[in-house]
Amino acid sequence: MAKTKRLCLLLARLMALGATLSAAIVMATSHEKASFYAVSFEAKYDNTPAFKYFVIANAVASVYGLLVLFLPSKSLLWRLVIVLDVVFTMLVTSSISAALAIAEVGKKGNSSAGWLPICAQVQKYCDQVKGALIAGFIGAIIYLLLLLYSIHNVWDPLFKQNT
Amino acid sequence: MAKTKRLCLLLARLMALGATLSAAIVMATSHEKASFYAVSFEAKYDNTPAFKYFVIANAVASVYGLLVLFLPSKSLLWRLVIVLDVVFTMLVTSSISAALAIAEVGKKGNSSAGWLPICAQVQKYCDQVKGALIAGFIGAIIYLLLLLYSIHNVWDPLFKQNT
Repeated sequence: MAKTKRLCLLLARLMALGATLSAAIVMATSHEKASFYAVSFEAKYDNTPAFKYFVIANAVASVYGLLVLFLPSKSLLWRLVIVLDVVFTMLVTSSISAALAIAEVGKKGNSSAGWLPICAQVQKYCDQVKGALIAGFIGAIIYLLLLLYSIHNVWDPLFKQNT
Repeated sequence: MAKTKRLCLLLARLMALGATLSAAIVMATSHEKASFYAVSFEAKYDNTPAFKYFVIANAVASVYGLLVLFLPSKSLLWRLVIVLDVVFTMLVTSSISAALAIAEVGKKGNSSAGWLPICAQVQKYCDQVKGALIAGFIGAIIYLLLLLYSIHNVWDPLFKQNT
């Protein structure tokens, strides 16, 4: 029983790692050249601070996710992992929110500020950003579930007796 | 000792409540009329989805913060409070990130997307948004500290014996 649980947790962490890693890579490789009324421009993630933050946050979370995989199951460091899970879940969540806010302006524009939507001109770029956001979102959800499970575990005296 | 601790925690929750409440109010009351090359426009928080999300998230967190204040100290619901602290800290953090991303475009613009900065035209509005973001940030930090403290508490057997 304890083994199945551990395997499930490992699988969840692997999925979270895959999600954050692919989010970072998909966002980092997103770029498209387009021309708009004879003005050519290149849409690239590093033109937007929120997207840069998204790539960095997801890359850092991926490194953390990789390191945790190699932590021995009896290690006392697992206590620290709960705290780090809190921090990294927040980091990923906040990076998604920031990127999503900008992506929303890119898609719909903001008429009161005079910001025009750009997704019609750089459709491929927008799709790639959307993919990265979905991957990041999946990663954040998995981390949130892992975190809630860890908190539940700390409470549950039965679990402590079983291991 | 236990009483001082409880007083400190109450004070922290009061501060967090004040921070999120003022963040919501300051953002919700931010609006300014301005004219730009004979075109007059009104900058208002509800023109921007990210700012609307910020107001709603901080208002909801304030209601939660208020309700927690009236929870009896011996209640079993305090266990649920840790989970809710996780959820609301994330909610507030993500709303700040989204609003900050938009505020950054408002201040500096995004030349590659052709979005012009608007803060020079609506300085008062921008200052108010900045104030709301700072208040929200303080609230998020306090919630994060409360959360880390709760997690620490659950681990610490000494604390359990003291109460």
